[in-house]
Amino acid sequence: MITLTTDFGLKDPYVAEMKGVIYSIKPAARIVDVSHQIDKYNVRMAAFILGSAAPYFAKGTVHVVVVDPGVGTNRRAIVVQTKQAFFVGPDNGVLMLAAKVQGVSHIYGLIDPKYMLQEVSSTFHGRDIFAPVAAHLDKGVKPKEFGVEITDPVTPKFANVERKNGSISGEVLHVDGFGNVITNIGKAEVAEAKTVKVNLHHISLQLPCSETYWNAKSQEPLALVGSHGFLELALNQGSFSEKYRVNAGDRIEAVIS
Amino acid sequence: MITLTTDFGLKDPYVAEMKGVIYSIKPAARIVDVSHQIDKYNVRMAAFILGSAAPYFAKGTVHVVVVDPGVGTNRRAIVVQTKQAFFVGPDNGVLMLAAKVQGVSHIYGLIDPKYMLQEVSSTFHGRDIFAPVAAHLDKGVKPKEFGVEITDPVTPKFANVERKNGSISGEVLHVDGFGNVITNIGKAEVAEAKTVKVNLHHISLQLPCSETYWNAKSQEPLALVGSHGFLELALNQGSFSEKYRVNAGDRIEAVIS
Amino acid sequence: MITLTTDFGLKDPYVAEMKGVIYSIKPAARIVDVSHQIDKYNVRMAAFILGSAAPYFAKGTVHVVVVDPGVGTNRRAIVVQTKQAFFVGPDNGVLMLAAKVQGVSHIYGLIDPKYMLQEVSSTFHGRDIFAPVAAHLDKGVKPKEFGVEITDPVTPKFANVERKNGSISGEVLHVDGFGNVITNIGKAEVAEAKTVKVNLHHISLQLPCSETYWNAKSQEPLALVGSHGFLELALNQGSFSEKYRVNAGDRIEAVIS
Repeated sequence: MITLTTDFGLKDPYVAEMKGVIYSIKPAARIVDVSHQIDKYNVRMAAFILGSAAPYFAKGTVHVVVVDPGVGTNRRAIVVQTKQAFFVGPDNGVLMLAAKVQGVSHIYGLIDPKYMLQEVSSTFHGRDIFAPVAAHLDKGVKPKEFGVEITDPVTPKFANVERKNGSISGEVLHVDGFGNVITNIGKAEVAEAKTVKVNLHHISLQLPCSETYWNAKSQEPLALVGSHGFLELALNQGSFSEKYRVNAGDRIEAVIS
Repeated sequence: MITLTTDFGLKDPYVAEMKGVIYSIKPAARIVDVSHQIDKYNVRMAAFILGSAAPYFAKGTVHVVVVDPGVGTNRRAIVVQTKQAFFVGPDNGVLMLAAKVQGVSHIYGLIDPKYMLQEVSSTFHGRDIFAPVAAHLDKGVKPKEFGVEITDPVTPKFANVERKNGSISGEVLHVDGFGNVITNIGKAEVAEAKTVKVNLHHISLQLPCSETYWNAKSQEPLALVGSHGFLELALNQGSFSEKYRVNAGDRIEAVIS
Repeated sequence: MITLTTDFGLKDPYVAEMKGVIYSIKPAARIVDVSHQIDKYNVRMAAFILGSAAPYFAKGTVHVVVVDPGVGTNRRAIVVQTKQAFFVGPDNGVLMLAAKVQGVSHIYGLIDPKYMLQEVSSTFHGRDIFAPVAAHLDKGVKPKEFGVEITDPVTPKFANVERKNGSISGEVLHVDGFGNVITNIGKAEVAEAKTVKVNLHHISLQLPCSETYWNAKSQEPLALVGSHGFLELALNQGSFSEKYRVNAGDRIEAVIS
């Protein structure tokens, strides 16, 4: 099975071109779209979306990500092998959030042209490099066949939180389509919390911790551990993000009590 | 075959998480997306969209709907067995428009944790309950295995029309992407119509009944029986909905002549 | 394999209805979405999108396009057989850009009701004619079985460029989701170019020709041959289309040096 995560949108032919390439190499491939509506060039958002979806896919799945502002520069193309899956994409950190959770075994640079399209454009490595590599991986080619081992991958900063004086500093990973605000603060940090005080850039809120949206009154804010395992700020039946003007990338400080 | 209808949109990882769960339980599953762009929490719209699509799927198809404003409350989760298919989702009426047309055989509450994910969140039953149940149904598990029979499902009001003094009162089920206004008045009601007078909240129109958009001049309104079998109001090469400011949920009265 | 390109959007049930019909006729069909977000009735855009994607699909693929402003009129429905693939859709030029590149062998009108749904609506030939025809083609029915040969298909004008006095006149085929402006001027015309002077309706620009977006400074314009083989105008890390207010259909004159 191969999954695709890109910032290509669904209007343009780019996703279909990648699928055409994959099916041409492996006609029996099974492809699942994770998302093609990542905000353009937004590496953090893509990393979060893939990190949420990847745990639900079976062993041996090949996850391809094409959010690639550096295409055509000398940024490397890589495959990350974990205990559970393979991750294929640019070496800009976008793969590492999902891969680290699974335990990284090896990382290889993609340099053997044998596994690329014959003509590699400078603008569309998704189709010319990542798609054919994914199809070959799915056919059973070993990761080390694609190139040389790499030990210094670019790692994303947005995965880190800081603890000091009883507070946890992190950031907003993602705002979902319901307006729920998902932070990078993991569930272990807030396991026993009854309430959370959150300091945002312009406002402080004392929020009850709940198991479900419905424990708050309609349009009232609450904190919960979302289905992906991170601290999430939500409004019952409304959009927390709109009401409090919170965006992905915003800093957040949480004090548990 | 399994179909999915949700209000999750295509940006977030939620749809992919459901697919990952389904494929993990049944690797050979075939999944078709009906729509993931149902307006958030809009049960009527989801019911209509599924009701339009379901008749075209083969016997034994499992239709999953996740438009679920009550997730985390005590609303029930159900599987509806019809002569043609299975419908899985929340017991909020969203399944019944499509199911009733096919003839409902049995309805069961989903309560056996054996067929759910090990950890069931309070916010995402689509992934934790409906997806695994659908995969197990598709593998051949009998509906009654999932729980107890239910005889009092929530039924939607938007399926009903009223007749009096030669007029038919109904409502707008859906406005499609072309601006066509689809009512809940069935084709039997307007079978012999030459013209229809429609009274909307703010305007009355005398419309010719046509077989195709082209029987009206460009930008002129007409009435027809749409491809889904309901009375539809349209503008040739334009948007009826925009021109006459009609929205889903609006009341409509039709007088046939 | 069957691909689908439509202007139906992803909210409505129309795409799923087509898939249900295809799977009912050929349960083992493999369907790939090229795009369902073609601008409504925009034949040129659909022709370009399909033309970009089709070359990447394997021999024998059936490409279906439903961008069909004339549905319900006497416009013909056709299947175009090329050396590489089959193209199914309305006879309004939308299939010919992709088909011509592959070398057209035969074109047949779709008239045998045996290969259509039993009830053919006047508003949705995508579901009632094109989907079942595609499924039957994919099952091995020969194109000539569907109807009579046609030798005068509607051909699109937007594929033509004009050369005079050292300049090339063409038009903007498409503006992609990144704001890149794709013209109908092929790569052969600009093979040796170092710079291109482009005259747009309201501005003239002298642009460097580059192999990749990164050869320009951030937010600076450049010309390149895009991944689809056409002259493309782009802004490094920005939207050329927005900055210079260029839209699909705009005329463009290019002087190579």
